[in-house]
Amino acid sequence: MRFETTGRNGYARAGKLTLDHGIVETPVFMPVGTNGAIKMCSRECVKDAGAQIVLSNAFHLYLKPGLDVLRSFGGIHNFASWDIPVLTDSGGFQIFSLSKNMHVDDEGVEFKSPLDGSVHKFTPEKVIEIQETIGSDIAMVLDECLAPGNDLESTKKSVKRTSKWAERALKSHTRKDQSLFGITQGGFFEDLRRESTTEITSMPFDGFGIGGLSVGEDIDTTLRMLDVVLPLMPENKPRYLMGVGDPILMLEAIERGVDMMDCVLPTRMARHGGILTSSGRINIRASAYEKDPTPLDPECNCKVCKTYSRGYIHHLIKRGESTGMILATYHNIYFLTNLMKQSRDAIIKGEFDDFKKFVIEKINGKR
Amino acid sequence: MRFETTGRNGYARAGKLTLDHGIVETPVFMPVGTNGAIKMCSRECVKDAGAQIVLSNAFHLYLKPGLDVLRSFGGIHNFASWDIPVLTDSGGFQIFSLSKNMHVDDEGVEFKSPLDGSVHKFTPEKVIEIQETIGSDIAMVLDECLAPGNDLESTKKSVKRTSKWAERALKSHTRKDQSLFGITQGGFFEDLRRESTTEITSMPFDGFGIGGLSVGEDIDTTLRMLDVVLPLMPENKPRYLMGVGDPILMLEAIERGVDMMDCVLPTRMARHGGILTSSGRINIRASAYEKDPTPLDPECNCKVCKTYSRGYIHHLIKRGESTGMILATYHNIYFLTNLMKQSRDAIIKGEFDDFKKFVIEKINGKR
Repeated sequence: MRFETTGRNGYARAGKLTLDHGIVETPVFMPVGTNGAIKMCSRECVKDAGAQIVLSNAFHLYLKPGLDVLRSFGGIHNFASWDIPVLTDSGGFQIFSLSKNMHVDDEGVEFKSPLDGSVHKFTPEKVIEIQETIGSDIAMVLDECLAPGNDLESTKKSVKRTSKWAERALKSHTRKDQSLFGITQGGFFEDLRRESTTEITSMPFDGFGIGGLSVGEDIDTTLRMLDVVLPLMPENKPRYLMGVGDPILMLEAIERGVDMMDCVLPTRMARHGGILTSSGRINIRASAYEKDPTPLDPECNCKVCKTYSRGYIHHLIKRGESTGMILATYHNIYFLTNLMKQSRDAIIKGEFDDFKKFVIEKINGKR
Repeated sequence: MRFETTGRNGYARAGKLTLDHGIVETPVFMPVGTNGAIKMCSRECVKDAGAQIVLSNAFHLYLKPGLDVLRSFGGIHNFASWDIPVLTDSGGFQIFSLSKNMHVDDEGVEFKSPLDGSVHKFTPEKVIEIQETIGSDIAMVLDECLAPGNDLESTKKSVKRTSKWAERALKSHTRKDQSLFGITQGGFFEDLRRESTTEITSMPFDGFGIGGLSVGEDIDTTLRMLDVVLPLMPENKPRYLMGVGDPILMLEAIERGVDMMDCVLPTRMARHGGILTSSGRINIRASAYEKDPTPLDPECNCKVCKTYSRGYIHHLIKRGESTGMILATYHNIYFLTNLMKQSRDAIIKGEFDDFKKFVIEKINGKR
């Protein structure tokens, strides 16, 4: 992996990430294909919508199709016919949010499969083994994701544990063609965020994730944590803010020096009619759109907006028609990849502040 | 509408149907987009898979989005951004199969909406008005669809009623840019099939549907009915066998002189893993395909078969991942449009008999 900065505007950076399966220009939004496919969007569709890299998940792929199948296909790129870079999340977040009867200790975490109730144990080493089998371009370490609202003591303990797990992950990682990112945690405690970031970034990872944010807290808290964390991160490595796909928060994060983001929400909400537009989010199911002949976002140049009307997509999504979900998913992915492209261009031109202000004012209905 | 025959091979014909929104080469398979969209396949996808014409449904479009919305968009082509020809079924079949508390008399049929229980009445005239509002290239008359297994007496009555309704539909039809097809019925009674076909084809329709077949009867019965009906149909008008999408039955129908077919099954079964292949139907959910690196149909040239493996689509469909359904739907539509294209070519070359024999033997595992 190679990461070069191609432009700077204050703390905001444009960059280029060279991976085995392609080049990724940052800032970048990564659509999420948990089970090895972005829902309602084939690989052709994802690429056509502007995605340069997709995210998948070690936890889900380990459960199904399982390592045996992935091994027989030689990894995710061949299995899913993905010819662009893939980042896999370790599944830490999923274990802690989806599993019942989860038990965590210093060794690792034991959990029951949400699919069939079978018992599994993930250790930092096991999660590396899984991701080396998956063969993603970028692997993430196993971290302990506490539920938001945990107290200082338990958060402190989990920061220590996450650092120890990070060391073990680094030690067990062998694939030279796979990058490995550490993950910083620390809840909403500035001191712990500092501690975790300092510890994790002192280790020789290829890049760094910021975990445990955008989990329900207000945006001011998220930004306060980013303000603490980002200045401590090395300049020469990519920074990945995990689980963020809200346009305003993405711009705020970019301004502070974030390079990579992912979120399942833009594609999930598309399936329920939630549409990202340059004038803010709309729900296309609203009766106001029944006879609306205009595109989802009149300022969008995506092929759905060039072809289809709000009225048609309103009808399809209200009727539960999957093709409406396909069209909405495509648009939302395009909207975010395009927002990232515009951000890159603005950073390189040195106009990111104006660009950000303009976009946010429009979203908030002030233009 | 213009219909010309471009090739003949026994009773089989290749033809060209010129409609307002494009030319349709026959024999043709029409994918079904009941609610104004083919499920799991956008317009781009449908066209890319080789479809020349799509089918929609007056009954469903009347219920939702409703005539008011369709009027405001100026019809289905503008509403759904469909730039290829559209045929609408009258909805007769749907009323008789989906509605509860349905009451039919000589005037028309009263039914409760399966969506909200509201009461509606369809008459032959109303169904024409609906389809003129939809603006389909080809409209179908309202017919009485009896459940299979009805006795001679009630079938006789329904044949008479269907003929009277056909006359009324013809009288009330005003749009010159829309073709109108009559529908022949007659259950599984050869005499009644003859009677209905003679009566309906004596009226000045632009083409003729064959209704009430492929509703659960064995293939020999279907073919026996086709053998009775087709020789009575005029040579110079298209013949549309309604609701047939099984490859073998399609070839048998083409051999007997059928030009057009539609069926919801190829797309519906795709969503559940039912895949059409040149060696017969497979269910991709079967565990045998878990590690299978070969395409859905090794002899297929569609872009799904060129890119994806059985193993991947097996995984996606077993996990309920919509993108697996998208890939399977595309393949099944391609498979049938390609079978029709090959049939056309074979008819024009005078080799249809050999072609049909070869394809059926392969499907039946004899090659």
